[in-house]
Amino acid sequence: MHSAQDAPQVNGSTAYGKSAVDGLKKEEKREQSSVRKLSKEHDHVLKTFRLLIADLCQQFNGGHPGGAIGMAAIGVALWKYVMRYAPHTPDYFNRDRFILSNGYKAMTFDQLKSYHSDRVDALCPGHPEIEHEGIEVTTGPLGQGVANAVGLAMATKNLQATYNKPDFDVVSNHTWCMIGDACLQEGVALEAISFAGHLKLNNLTIIYDNNQITCDGSVDLTNTEDVNTKMRACGWDVVDVEDGCFDVEGLIEALNKARASTEKPTFINVRTIIGVGSAVAGDAVAHGVAFGTTDVANMKKAYGFNPDEHFVVSDEVRKFFADIPERGQELVKSWEERVAAYETKYPDEGADFRRRIEGRLTEDWKSLVPTSFTDAPTATRKSSGLVFNTLAEKINNFMVGTADLTPSVNMTWKGKVDFQHPDLKTTCGITGNYSGRYIHYGVREHAMAAVSNGLAAFAPNTFIPVTSSFFMFYLYAAPAVRMGALQQLQVIHAATHDSIGMGEDGPTHQPIELANLYRAMPNLLYIRPGDSEETAGAWITAIEAKKTPSIISTSRHTLPQLPQTNRDMVAKGAYVLEEVEDADVTLIGVGAELHRAVETANELKAKNIKTRVVSFPCQRLFENQSIQYKRETLRRHLGIPAVVIEPFAPNGWERYADAACCVKRFGHSLPGKAAYKYFGFDVPALTAKVEGYLKQVQDDPLLKGEFVDL
Amino acid sequence: MHSAQDAPQVNGSTAYGKSAVDGLKKEEKREQSSVRKLSKEHDHVLKTFRLLIADLCQQFNGGHPGGAIGMAAIGVALWKYVMRYAPHTPDYFNRDRFILSNGYKAMTFDQLKSYHSDRVDALCPGHPEIEHEGIEVTTGPLGQGVANAVGLAMATKNLQATYNKPDFDVVSNHTWCMIGDACLQEGVALEAISFAGHLKLNNLTIIYDNNQITCDGSVDLTNTEDVNTKMRACGWDVVDVEDGCFDVEGLIEALNKARASTEKPTFINVRTIIGVGSAVAGDAVAHGVAFGTTDVANMKKAYGFNPDEHFVVSDEVRKFFADIPERGQELVKSWEERVAAYETKYPDEGADFRRRIEGRLTEDWKSLVPTSFTDAPTATRKSSGLVFNTLAEKINNFMVGTADLTPSVNMTWKGKVDFQHPDLKTTCGITGNYSGRYIHYGVREHAMAAVSNGLAAFAPNTFIPVTSSFFMFYLYAAPAVRMGALQQLQVIHAATHDSIGMGEDGPTHQPIELANLYRAMPNLLYIRPGDSEETAGAWITAIEAKKTPSIISTSRHTLPQLPQTNRDMVAKGAYVLEEVEDADVTLIGVGAELHRAVETANELKAKNIKTRVVSFPCQRLFENQSIQYKRETLRRHLGIPAVVIEPFAPNGWERYADAACCVKRFGHSLPGKAAYKYFGFDVPALTAKVEGYLKQVQDDPLLKGEFVDL
Repeated sequence: MHSAQDAPQVNGSTAYGKSAVDGLKKEEKREQSSVRKLSKEHDHVLKTFRLLIADLCQQFNGGHPGGAIGMAAIGVALWKYVMRYAPHTPDYFNRDRFILSNGYKAMTFDQLKSYHSDRVDALCPGHPEIEHEGIEVTTGPLGQGVANAVGLAMATKNLQATYNKPDFDVVSNHTWCMIGDACLQEGVALEAISFAGHLKLNNLTIIYDNNQITCDGSVDLTNTEDVNTKMRACGWDVVDVEDGCFDVEGLIEALNKARASTEKPTFINVRTIIGVGSAVAGDAVAHGVAFGTTDVANMKKAYGFNPDEHFVVSDEVRKFFADIPERGQELVKSWEERVAAYETKYPDEGADFRRRIEGRLTEDWKSLVPTSFTDAPTATRKSSGLVFNTLAEKINNFMVGTADLTPSVNMTWKGKVDFQHPDLKTTCGITGNYSGRYIHYGVREHAMAAVSNGLAAFAPNTFIPVTSSFFMFYLYAAPAVRMGALQQLQVIHAATHDSIGMGEDGPTHQPIELANLYRAMPNLLYIRPGDSEETAGAWITAIEAKKTPSIISTSRHTLPQLPQTNRDMVAKGAYVLEEVEDADVTLIGVGAELHRAVETANELKAKNIKTRVVSFPCQRLFENQSIQYKRETLRRHLGIPAVVIEPFAPNGWERYADAACCVKRFGHSLPGKAAYKYFGFDVPALTAKVEGYLKQVQDDPLLKGEFVDL
Repeated sequence: MHSAQDAPQVNGSTAYGKSAVDGLKKEEKREQSSVRKLSKEHDHVLKTFRLLIADLCQQFNGGHPGGAIGMAAIGVALWKYVMRYAPHTPDYFNRDRFILSNGYKAMTFDQLKSYHSDRVDALCPGHPEIEHEGIEVTTGPLGQGVANAVGLAMATKNLQATYNKPDFDVVSNHTWCMIGDACLQEGVALEAISFAGHLKLNNLTIIYDNNQITCDGSVDLTNTEDVNTKMRACGWDVVDVEDGCFDVEGLIEALNKARASTEKPTFINVRTIIGVGSAVAGDAVAHGVAFGTTDVANMKKAYGFNPDEHFVVSDEVRKFFADIPERGQELVKSWEERVAAYETKYPDEGADFRRRIEGRLTEDWKSLVPTSFTDAPTATRKSSGLVFNTLAEKINNFMVGTADLTPSVNMTWKGKVDFQHPDLKTTCGITGNYSGRYIHYGVREHAMAAVSNGLAAFAPNTFIPVTSSFFMFYLYAAPAVRMGALQQLQVIHAATHDSIGMGEDGPTHQPIELANLYRAMPNLLYIRPGDSEETAGAWITAIEAKKTPSIISTSRHTLPQLPQTNRDMVAKGAYVLEEVEDADVTLIGVGAELHRAVETANELKAKNIKTRVVSFPCQRLFENQSIQYKRETLRRHLGIPAVVIEPFAPNGWERYADAACCVKRFGHSLPGKAAYKYFGFDVPALTAKVEGYLKQVQDDPLLKGEFVDL
């Protein structure tokens, strides 16, 4: 998560002061104690890498050299000997996935020189970002990469269980995740580790760059746990590599052992030295600060390189890696032939697999959405189920999960199968297998969203992950929801219990300010439907947003079905529900409170106040409309004041309204109806507020230009 | 975290269907296998408790009966035999602290009948809330209670190391934290557990209500780890209690052993049966649904109670607990005498301790804030250090921590001592002891904020915890920041690197939408100072806000010192920096971009556009001002348009401005200056935008009533 591109000011830093000679001595000592001798070839490759990294950070005097230098041997072992990938076909479907969870060590092998430059088109920014080929997910905020990797490994398991035949392994890739000391401290990683152990994801390997250094100093300042025992307790196999800076052979052996694991995910604990070979080897300052020209020159001298040359890659090194592209293309060719034969032998499965590879839903998906609903009042969380359960049942792109709220979120379907290891026997009698598409994430909201990002990142729209929980707990998940938006991953979050109407659980569970975060978050659709019809519109909109995650925000409590709502208009963000000519006021109704706006309008009309009603399920979708549409919808340009009704913090509604019936304090534990009354959202109170506002503005015209909280 | 006050719809629920007889059989079997016999007295007390809980949930047909019923014996062991507390003096300073982290099991012993009622003044809401006596912290969102408890135990350690003398234990309390299966899945708890083990907090005990049930079914649906081994690996002692529903003696023994622990925190793994004695014993449906009248009546019959009577507490039960108040008052008296003797023997320490008990800072605290600063450009993260480091050094209420960003956040001070176990020897040579007040939280942002809430909750303002990290990572910490605001706990969050100007780390680290969350969050001050002078104002404001947490949001990069800024005006939220009569436009400058507003105003003035400048560090503080002050500051009522300059999402600025130079997409990895230019925040671009806007409004008067993104 950290960068600390800053001058070191660690207290006790005198303890760190070491010369380049000390650093090199440390390295020599390490080399001597190593059982295996480093081959000349590997030695040269490693030195070249380490100097390249030092040069890269030095050119703009910034970056994170230490970790990358410490991990060079791991890189060689992985990318030369173990990983199955194709540099010339970076989107090869069956490629091994590699996640750099300690993402500040981003180093791609091409156009490296743009690292930390001021080039807007830099291919190598400070942290790896998904839009560049060969980067599986964007990392940087620590810990999430681990959960992403768990999602990627689950994607593989699900595709394998769905499509592979005894004679056809059309999916067989492995997921490798490199982490640092910090990842093992972050809660989201700890949640994901526990979950991956439970699922027995033997196709997942964590490679722990154990250098025992973070920004503040040595890791034992804050973490002294027995990590191997902890990982074993979480259901992982553990493999140790003592000399991770130089023992390329040992690393290859460990990685191959991990790939061959039949029962559990593997945790490879690789001891490395941060900034090995530099003057600051083993010290915190090696993490986020360039070494300085003198140290870089000294490293080059000690390594037998010319200190005046930069970015030197010898022919020997180029030759060392030369076979990789061809090997990659052979993998691709062999896989394509295998898939072609599979399509011949199993035409139905083959066609379905092709559809998934291409990231398409079945053509008929929209016909699976009910065209109408019962007139009975329905909680929109139930409407969500009515709309989506059949889609989830019939279309296997959808992987649906919940953070332990199955009874509340209505996301199960008839005959749903849980995603579980097939051997699992639970006490409560529910079992599953890897072809299952319903995921019990446990009470792990953050990991749920980050794992879903991993599922979505496997290949574009091959999976459309759906998460579910109470809306308030999407604050726990927020860092991962954000990363999904940033990476343009289509994930749909079904968030229920989205208002004070959720009731007795009280202020800790009643969202007041959370919608403000998600309405401001770029590339995210936060949609609050007002009844079943709008809920259908919300799901259709979310499913059609191929590069945008959505939150569908629904009520715990029943809501009346409104005859005027229109699913197609949800995609506009807002639309006129009730029009009146020469109106006195427009009421903006949102989600669970839309019907209250309609009822308040009726009361006002009875008092001869001409009242329009606008339904406003999604601010971002409305922002995408033309100025003409916006004006015609709100009619504020005709001098008609608009009042928004929503028991959330008003911040942001000022763009669309002149006054707000909103809430500026935390909620209160009361049954839903009582909570609405307590906060002044019963229809008589709302009517009085709007009426009062219209009078107030008449009396004090200045108020017309100001936003008023009612 | 969960409530699921909803009808059960668990897939596979047929496996759950059990009669009351089955439930009772299960219980009998358990009783028979128990080594220790339950005394008649305890048997009666437990039955009374269990029926009380069943009646409570039945009266309004809601609540979480199962867990509370399962934990009844733990409750008796703790509150009758082990806990040191005084019901008649609930704020007794040296009381044991008890945290119900699985907080949906809230059951206070008085006025219980308000549980789940529609009474606004209910003393027993759905989740325990801090404003009620005897509730140490508000819980509900799962996992945070564990971190709160760690903070409370750290508070005790720090006070002990600071004030206790060999002959005077003026602080000696223990912290007990009850958790459920879900807490062990949440990341924030896992972060805190690892941290508490590192700190060797032997005054902390977790009591794990191990009933193996959550909303979705049995815990093994999602978690199959070896929890005892995991806890030991994290540095905890583990004690097992096999029969936690009935073995009161065994529980007392385990709890006493935990209190006596000399080296490590203790994890008591207590096997219980959710809803024991009811028809749904051991099943998920027992968690969040009332049992139904028939089952409650059957329980009463089986227990030998009258099924037609409700809320029955016999004289025998009342007598059983009768000695507790007196015992409590004796504890209080003895402690008060001890403190009085301490004050006589150690007058200096005694006076200081008294000040801390009363939650006061030293009288001279404001004089420790520098009255002026160097004219040199300074990053406001450095200004934060200039303002606060001396305060932190001299005033021991402050406990300052960082999530592994010591070199970047400037929160250390001369001679700072780390809060650590005194025996810790770190590789990097930094040591500490429990009297230390600088905390290396590790890369655990969420736990940092939740632990800080625990420190603050020890007693009002005895501690003022300060956290620090990059602003973007306060998204990881957000659920705990929210709980601090909800509980009115004074915690100060020093958030640095708060804009696109933070640079190369790119969009994952550049906050765009996070300020929108915190500006909307009730009872939180989000303050962005523009230079050193305003940074002084921000800290003074935050320190004076005794019941409100603050985020002081500062820049990574250097900012010029502005001669017009005024620390005293920060408390107003916004103030006029440059006044002009008959102005054409007002520029609103914020935080790291305030100087850009000033410079843009100069450019506009050179073009004869009369430009006012308003500095706007905090929206919530401004909202607290009178309407007169607001109008005079913004002057929009005079028809002067206002343009805000801030590279965040504009949502919410519409209340104060007519147009925005803001950002509606994610950031970009570029050096800070280049990022500002790329997003159009260099002064020439800003000048052109404002000029263009003024022309645009002239051409299309309709725009005047609409908010315009520039």
